[in-house]
Amino acid sequence: MTATLTSEGYTLGVVGGGQLGRMLAEAAGPLGVELVVLDPTPDCPASALARDQICAEFDDPDALAELAERADALTFEIELADPDLMERVGGDAGVPVHPSPDTLRTIQDKLVQTEALADAGVPVPEFRGVDGPEELEAALEELGRPAMAKARTGGYDGRGNAPVASVEDAEAYFGDCSDLIVEKLVDFERELSVIGVKGDGERDAFPVVENVHETEILRETVVPARTDDDTAARAREVALDVLDTLEGRGVYGIELFERESEGTNEILVNEIAPRPHNSGHYTIEGAHTSQFEQHVRGVLGLPLGSTALRGPVAMANILGDVDDPAPAELAGYGDVLAMDGVSLHWYGKREARPLRKMGHLTAVPLGDEDAPELLEHVRDARGKLTFATDP
Amino acid sequence: MTATLTSEGYTLGVVGGGQLGRMLAEAAGPLGVELVVLDPTPDCPASALARDQICAEFDDPDALAELAERADALTFEIELADPDLMERVGGDAGVPVHPSPDTLRTIQDKLVQTEALADAGVPVPEFRGVDGPEELEAALEELGRPAMAKARTGGYDGRGNAPVASVEDAEAYFGDCSDLIVEKLVDFERELSVIGVKGDGERDAFPVVENVHETEILRETVVPARTDDDTAARAREVALDVLDTLEGRGVYGIELFERESEGTNEILVNEIAPRPHNSGHYTIEGAHTSQFEQHVRGVLGLPLGSTALRGPVAMANILGDVDDPAPAELAGYGDVLAMDGVSLHWYGKREARPLRKMGHLTAVPLGDEDAPELLEHVRDARGKLTFATDP
Repeated sequence: MTATLTSEGYTLGVVGGGQLGRMLAEAAGPLGVELVVLDPTPDCPASALARDQICAEFDDPDALAELAERADALTFEIELADPDLMERVGGDAGVPVHPSPDTLRTIQDKLVQTEALADAGVPVPEFRGVDGPEELEAALEELGRPAMAKARTGGYDGRGNAPVASVEDAEAYFGDCSDLIVEKLVDFERELSVIGVKGDGERDAFPVVENVHETEILRETVVPARTDDDTAARAREVALDVLDTLEGRGVYGIELFERESEGTNEILVNEIAPRPHNSGHYTIEGAHTSQFEQHVRGVLGLPLGSTALRGPVAMANILGDVDDPAPAELAGYGDVLAMDGVSLHWYGKREARPLRKMGHLTAVPLGDEDAPELLEHVRDARGKLTFATDP
Repeated sequence: MTATLTSEGYTLGVVGGGQLGRMLAEAAGPLGVELVVLDPTPDCPASALARDQICAEFDDPDALAELAERADALTFEIELADPDLMERVGGDAGVPVHPSPDTLRTIQDKLVQTEALADAGVPVPEFRGVDGPEELEAALEELGRPAMAKARTGGYDGRGNAPVASVEDAEAYFGDCSDLIVEKLVDFERELSVIGVKGDGERDAFPVVENVHETEILRETVVPARTDDDTAARAREVALDVLDTLEGRGVYGIELFERESEGTNEILVNEIAPRPHNSGHYTIEGAHTSQFEQHVRGVLGLPLGSTALRGPVAMANILGDVDDPAPAELAGYGDVLAMDGVSLHWYGKREARPLRKMGHLTAVPLGDEDAPELLEHVRDARGKLTFATDP
């Protein structure tokens, strides 16, 4: 791809039109790149900011072919995208697909992904592939109880992951004990992550950040991570090793565990997302180039931007706090807009659901606040928001 | 307007879909606000990022009525918008119009605008309304030759402004000598500007910035302005006085002259734009809230954000460097993307024309660079770009 911008600009075809697609569109505009998204939900979050939405199922071959025909490059913002189909329509239209369908195939199966990392010498928690009650029993005997069980395919946002101590636990959560990967629980000091990015002959990583999860769902990101420099350097090193195992350009979210150890703490890779990642949302305000802009640059084969921080930053997710699905109606919106140094990112989802990611907030310093202070600030902001109609 | 965000979010109806509309759309998305723009040019710059473009003339009453019906509030990004029509369709649809049509009416006539400022005690260059050769001769006699002649209506981006020393000069540029305002040339030290913003019961101003013009067209903005603190404080004071003469919410670009004087330098108001302004583009990277986000907040009556700087910043316009209109094809695009600390904003215009505003570049510090160094950096970046096919 040449480094000339032509009259019509570039068009990026994106499978999935959720919040990641929406923030991709916001970041693509300034580069002269417009989005066409494929998503089955009418008025999906990305649709307000994309050139067009093709309203169809993710695996509709005709819709995907149309997407490829209209695009200069194809990418996806959901792991549920169909790698075979994307490969075929991309090939037919002569349009590159990034990250590569091979990478997507690998990542879609958590057992295959973890095996590939282990084979490449990347440190991962001790794990077993499990298919059936007997194998689960054996794995729990070896790894200890409880262990973290994950559906090999189809999980997202912590859905499909559960700590289990017995066959009964697994059956209660998964229905049965087939097609699981079971990992030894890591007694971690911190959960870290690194947003990596691969371009055309270059790769880079944003600084190491710290994540706070609750019930397997990301709640907050603190930047930089509250760890020591050696551990941060080690985390970056591991993340770059992970990047080298992955095929295709674009942004990757790499989740890590930091485990206490003599000397530099130990780093283990937890999961990889072949797309912009919730723990990289802080980059919009916090870094010189956002993860979304990097993904657009990477996928199109354009030069990557600087991954340097502009300063400390904290991010908090806005999750649906309703008991049952309800039309999204966010009280406290004005109160948050009135807070200096806090930015709101609303995803435009029509319906609030329990723990659904509806938006996020970012806090940057107005003076010399550090990351822990910004975390308090962004938590204060989030505390003003609710979808519950009877507070 | 309540401070609750409902399921569908807000829709802002914008008359005009140029680069200002495009950057409004980019800024509106995170707030949960989508845009519908009205513009006669198919695939206008804003169309790629707006929910919809109504493709019609700016004064098409049916199209304007449709815009009002679909919007929660109406605004405009071009001074050519028709204030009477906007007032009528806004009234019919029960939708507020901001800034107020009255303000737009005043600003559309540079003589009326300047008289209103002078009446309010705001310092302006000495001026005369001129209608015909005799009045022009008299004005030049009094104000000195050359003086700055401006068409009372219809000018933009310096088009419609020319220094004239004689009736012949004026006739050569304007065709005749009717409906002009003629101002004494200001021997200025610097050209400054302030982006002001009015919200619901609040008003604020971004820091004072310095602008470099050439042939009446803005080339660069340097932030903060390279002036002394007292002069900057005086400029802010004058800008806030200007804001108080204007009716209606939203962002205003206030262009100022700084003239050397004993003690604090003198500040004179040059022109006012009732909309986001080219000299405020730096706010996207340079301030906590961009002028575009402030305009969206202001027009909708939402709380304003912080106008504080995040640091020094410099902005350079990318102008068409072609001799004749030609399909836009920007060489050097990749070279600029590879520069750390520089952000590109491309407007998506299909055709490059001589001196047409095609995009802009912003430079922020990666280390401890100050504003003059950032100005050099952003000029370097711009120097890599050209639309000329035979360099």
